[in-house]
Amino acid sequence: VSTHTHSVRIYYEDTDLSGLVYHANYLRYMERAREHLLGPDELVRLYTEEGIGFVVYHAELTYKKGARLGDVIEVRTDVRAESEFRLIFEQNTWSTGATPSLMVEGLIHLVTVDRNDKLIRVPRSVIERLSSG
Amino acid sequence: VSTHTHSVRIYYEDTDLSGLVYHANYLRYMERAREHLLGPDELVRLYTEEGIGFVVYHAELTYKKGARLGDVIEVRTDVRAESEFRLIFEQNTWSTGATPSLMVEGLIHLVTVDRNDKLIRVPRSVIERLSSG
Amino acid sequence: VSTHTHSVRIYYEDTDLSGLVYHANYLRYMERAREHLLGPDELVRLYTEEGIGFVVYHAELTYKKGARLGDVIEVRTDVRAESEFRLIFEQNTWSTGATPSLMVEGLIHLVTVDRNDKLIRVPRSVIERLSSG
Amino acid sequence: VSTHTHSVRIYYEDTDLSGLVYHANYLRYMERAREHLLGPDELVRLYTEEGIGFVVYHAELTYKKGARLGDVIEVRTDVRAESEFRLIFEQNTWSTGATPSLMVEGLIHLVTVDRNDKLIRVPRSVIERLSSG
Repeated sequence: VSTHTHSVRIYYEDTDLSGLVYHANYLRYMERAREHLLGPDELVRLYTEEGIGFVVYHAELTYKKGARLGDVIEVRTDVRAESEFRLIFEQNTWSTGATPSLMVEGLIHLVTVDRNDKLIRVPRSVIERLSSG
Repeated sequence: VSTHTHSVRIYYEDTDLSGLVYHANYLRYMERAREHLLGPDELVRLYTEEGIGFVVYHAELTYKKGARLGDVIEVRTDVRAESEFRLIFEQNTWSTGATPSLMVEGLIHLVTVDRNDKLIRVPRSVIERLSSG
Repeated sequence: VSTHTHSVRIYYEDTDLSGLVYHANYLRYMERAREHLLGPDELVRLYTEEGIGFVVYHAELTYKKGARLGDVIEVRTDVRAESEFRLIFEQNTWSTGATPSLMVEGLIHLVTVDRNDKLIRVPRSVIERLSSG
Repeated sequence: VSTHTHSVRIYYEDTDLSGLVYHANYLRYMERAREHLLGPDELVRLYTEEGIGFVVYHAELTYKKGARLGDVIEVRTDVRAESEFRLIFEQNTWSTGATPSLMVEGLIHLVTVDRNDKLIRVPRSVIERLSSG
């Protein structure tokens, strides 16, 4: 199972008055990466047909270096099933270019819930996709 | 029917690298004001019990002057029922302080839809609240 | 000068409780498209070296149909210089797939300002890029 | 030094298709609370006059229960100076009403930087305000 890479371009909307990306936005980029890793179509199918949703249970972020307008950064994701009920994503954001450097370290715990927001086992289809990734 | 006023404080999250509020955010402030004007509890009741939602059909914004971190601005709203199917909100944003000035002019057309996103008449409870406002 | 096309994928972050994209976000997508059209590198250079920024002066949006999670939509942009001081972008958002349909019509007026937020002529480098686009 | 409380109302813009608040937004609410605790005017003064900015260095969030449209939630903040260079904010979000429950646990490490993004000591004015809070 290899590291999944997702590129994000930084637009005006991403920055704040410091000129750097607003800190909460890295959680967005990490989520975008997870959606690609899990498969957008399967995510939508699970949600609309089976009422299964993914919920962030825990998040840890360490900010090393901020991205700026025009930058293209990379979210590199490794995932493992911690248990039948929890997926753990190590999601580090790197600058791109000649000498990439680590910008933000992320650790995200995801669980799955049913229509009534009750915890359920991570669906088999998701586990299989991740194992073959 | 008097003008409704809603105050908004500008935080880091609202700004972009220009130091001013990111232009799309004024649509958020106008929506917050509309929710207060229509009544948050009634909005939630309409949505959860009757499946009725409000949808922006048309929006026009003219930007005169940008707000900055720490500013408290005011969305002043006047509303009228254009027809049984459409509410029109004139929503101008003003700076506060000794000499308020107009920051952003807004005109928002709202319609109501049912669970299947079909256009419906604006609910009576909403019209009555607006008439007595 | 041909129509510029920019694709946007819809993520969780883009939606609201209606299941559709939150209305203000289309202004973000239109801005992303404009940044690509104007050239991100040139935008950054103008801002950091010359202190020149782009500011939305006027925006009109008409919402026809909402995008959903997993959709890939397209912002199609045509631009013209209305005067030496103003660029007008016609930015319509379309669904993709076998039978694309118009989702949101947008009209955005852009002006350029200097470090002191004073209106200036649109820089020559921008006009030239747009003419050759 | 007592616990600081900041109320946040949940609007359409805060939710995603799950009907609950989008997870990244709690970082925004925590930041709003910190700005009030530190003093918006002093924050602006530090930034514009002295070029001093606050930067999140580390964030940990644990999500227990999601907020919904129309909810009013409370960010309760306790802060301590971990060193001359770092402030640690314990920021827990609670539901309001007859029986408040814990929604999101947050722990935020803040540092201060100068105009060149170099780490500096937390300004005396900030420490004093926090000690007298």
